[in-house]
Amino acid sequence: MKESNRLKENLTDSEFNIKGECAISLLLTKLDIINIDLSRKIGRNVIQMRYGRMKTYESTCKKLKKKNLEKTFSAAVENLTDLIGVRAICSYVDDIYKVAGILEKQKDIRLLRVKDYIDAPKKSGYQSLHLILEIPISFQEGIQWMKVELQLRTAAMDYWANLDHQLRYKKGKKEAKLIDEELRQCAEEVGKLDRKMMEIRKKIDKI
Amino acid sequence: MKESNRLKENLTDSEFNIKGECAISLLLTKLDIINIDLSRKIGRNVIQMRYGRMKTYESTCKKLKKKNLEKTFSAAVENLTDLIGVRAICSYVDDIYKVAGILEKQKDIRLLRVKDYIDAPKKSGYQSLHLILEIPISFQEGIQWMKVELQLRTAAMDYWANLDHQLRYKKGKKEAKLIDEELRQCAEEVGKLDRKMMEIRKKIDKI
Amino acid sequence: MKESNRLKENLTDSEFNIKGECAISLLLTKLDIINIDLSRKIGRNVIQMRYGRMKTYESTCKKLKKKNLEKTFSAAVENLTDLIGVRAICSYVDDIYKVAGILEKQKDIRLLRVKDYIDAPKKSGYQSLHLILEIPISFQEGIQWMKVELQLRTAAMDYWANLDHQLRYKKGKKEAKLIDEELRQCAEEVGKLDRKMMEIRKKIDKI
Amino acid sequence: MKESNRLKENLTDSEFNIKGECAISLLLTKLDIINIDLSRKIGRNVIQMRYGRMKTYESTCKKLKKKNLEKTFSAAVENLTDLIGVRAICSYVDDIYKVAGILEKQKDIRLLRVKDYIDAPKKSGYQSLHLILEIPISFQEGIQWMKVELQLRTAAMDYWANLDHQLRYKKGKKEAKLIDEELRQCAEEVGKLDRKMMEIRKKIDKI
Repeated sequence: MKESNRLKENLTDSEFNIKGECAISLLLTKLDIINIDLSRKIGRNVIQMRYGRMKTYESTCKKLKKKNLEKTFSAAVENLTDLIGVRAICSYVDDIYKVAGILEKQKDIRLLRVKDYIDAPKKSGYQSLHLILEIPISFQEGIQWMKVELQLRTAAMDYWANLDHQLRYKKGKKEAKLIDEELRQCAEEVGKLDRKMMEIRKKIDKI
Repeated sequence: MKESNRLKENLTDSEFNIKGECAISLLLTKLDIINIDLSRKIGRNVIQMRYGRMKTYESTCKKLKKKNLEKTFSAAVENLTDLIGVRAICSYVDDIYKVAGILEKQKDIRLLRVKDYIDAPKKSGYQSLHLILEIPISFQEGIQWMKVELQLRTAAMDYWANLDHQLRYKKGKKEAKLIDEELRQCAEEVGKLDRKMMEIRKKIDKI
Repeated sequence: MKESNRLKENLTDSEFNIKGECAISLLLTKLDIINIDLSRKIGRNVIQMRYGRMKTYESTCKKLKKKNLEKTFSAAVENLTDLIGVRAICSYVDDIYKVAGILEKQKDIRLLRVKDYIDAPKKSGYQSLHLILEIPISFQEGIQWMKVELQLRTAAMDYWANLDHQLRYKKGKKEAKLIDEELRQCAEEVGKLDRKMMEIRKKIDKI
Repeated sequence: MKESNRLKENLTDSEFNIKGECAISLLLTKLDIINIDLSRKIGRNVIQMRYGRMKTYESTCKKLKKKNLEKTFSAAVENLTDLIGVRAICSYVDDIYKVAGILEKQKDIRLLRVKDYIDAPKKSGYQSLHLILEIPISFQEGIQWMKVELQLRTAAMDYWANLDHQLRYKKGKKEAKLIDEELRQCAEEVGKLDRKMMEIRKKIDKI
């Protein structure tokens, strides 16, 4: 079989795909438990929405190409951290770090890497906190540690990221450049709004 | 039984409550169908999240008191439009009107009233489009038209509304007044961000 | 494009597939409403589980071949009633007819055909009540009536049908014949159990 | 506060209730993972349905009374194993033991007790496999081991148990006695059906 076919197969029907879905489902449950626990303590919802997805074959190929890597399954598994991805939309910026802090302390989670694009946004303006985690899943043959990328962001950051994502699909075209600049300015306003909302909430908390 | 007890009973275990849950579930399905249909046509999600709730007894009493109405079930049903409520978070401001327009044209929906708090925000700064609808539910004994309030908003409007909701609980206190003013300014920035995001999306659509 | 490719396309990514998912979701909601309404009235759950599925390309091809029909999308739509399918597991045999009776009376449902395999089981022993329905879905361009096959059965009938389904995959082999006979006997015992359970429930109802 | 009030409070809005919901949600996810993993290996679904519930205040009181225990929260926590309960409907009898075996081997699960009412049904005829488990939940303040009763049964056992449950509500009445006897005979037929279905499935597996 051609290597690229094997990549496709591994990312769709295979064992990897099924185990990935298990990892997603376990991390979503962990996030639910954190949310239920925190919400009871501080009297408001901390995670508004959360969902997971396995990276598609098309999207994996594109990313491997962009990184000048071979189109093989082993190249993908070794180099891409977001083959298995979970996203959580948090209520306020400080909630993001609260959730991250709780996850980091859990004994059955290994934190491999943190990429803080809130503290230092990407050049495009992209903001989010990424945690590369390993979580243990009990399969019939024993425990397997699965790598998952967790993206934590506010609703405003997510709003921006969705718009940015739509633009990425049309990249390369000349008009895209100008919009890029507008979008970057927009990202700054998103950042300002997030900080302002958090400040107001902190004042309300103190009343 | 005291009238206020009867109100409580009617809003919790009763037939009204069960029928309300049915109305919510049908309207959510209608929104899903609109979203699936539109998403296929324009290549992106139009509704990001949707959920429904029956107004609690406590919240109903508070609203009846504020409106100087009797604490009875009939006063509630006749005067409050949001005993049965559904909320949908749309991707962009124009998506809100697209979804509303499609719903209005459906033959098995009666549109009783539109309150456009996007065009004319409330004094507090609150923005959303409210549709008071009646939808027919087939129960064993025949069709019954149930009144539902549908609130349509963007993620940014929802962000603001959640914060405003937290403040409402602490109203009356002196400090709340100052925060009120800050929150109103924030609402304006939310409005600006929404318009900017929509403009950029329209430019991207044209590429 | 080859006709069989067009069939595949039509059954997977296409408009038909998306509209089918909408029809499934609406019928499931209708079943939920019937269940909620009935449960309140008779004090127990009438529908235990329900789910829907679009017939896969592979399964459609197999059925077209078995019926000596062309492998085209129009042949499939005109001749197969279960391209869009919903299944509901009811608590007792009489609940099946209760649910069917309520659906039949709903004004926004057209009943095209009833196949009562409970009254007259298939030769294999298969029991279920099949309703071929048309339900109206409001799409942007107007209302479209979608054909759906609803299968109503008890848990015992479903138990049997799942086992039978596993055997179908191995049909043609000599050993399958003998098992066929055992399975048919088993179907009779399922029928007896269903009737006995219903009788006991009726006695309990009367206490 | 009266002890019985405290029991009610503890079983409804309290920390215990919230932590119980977390335990349910984690065990359901564990069952999903087992099902996904096994289904891939043996080519059919092993768990058909699963759900959890916290024992209600009313039901807790009834059980405490029946066991001649005080109506207090500590009496309930120490003596009742099913305050937090999960039920899984498995496809065949041997699947029940497969699922149980996999759970028992998981390192982050403590098996406190097994009650095998399949091997030795209750006098009433009741069949199911009960596992009393402890599972660790990561709360903000650290790991807490929560006790959960997992009930594993086939669809036929569940069918019977639901009918038996309806009868329990009418116990004490004279007519209930006669029905009891009929129900016990029915349980034997359920057992026979389960064994027969499993034997046929094993034959199909071998083809």
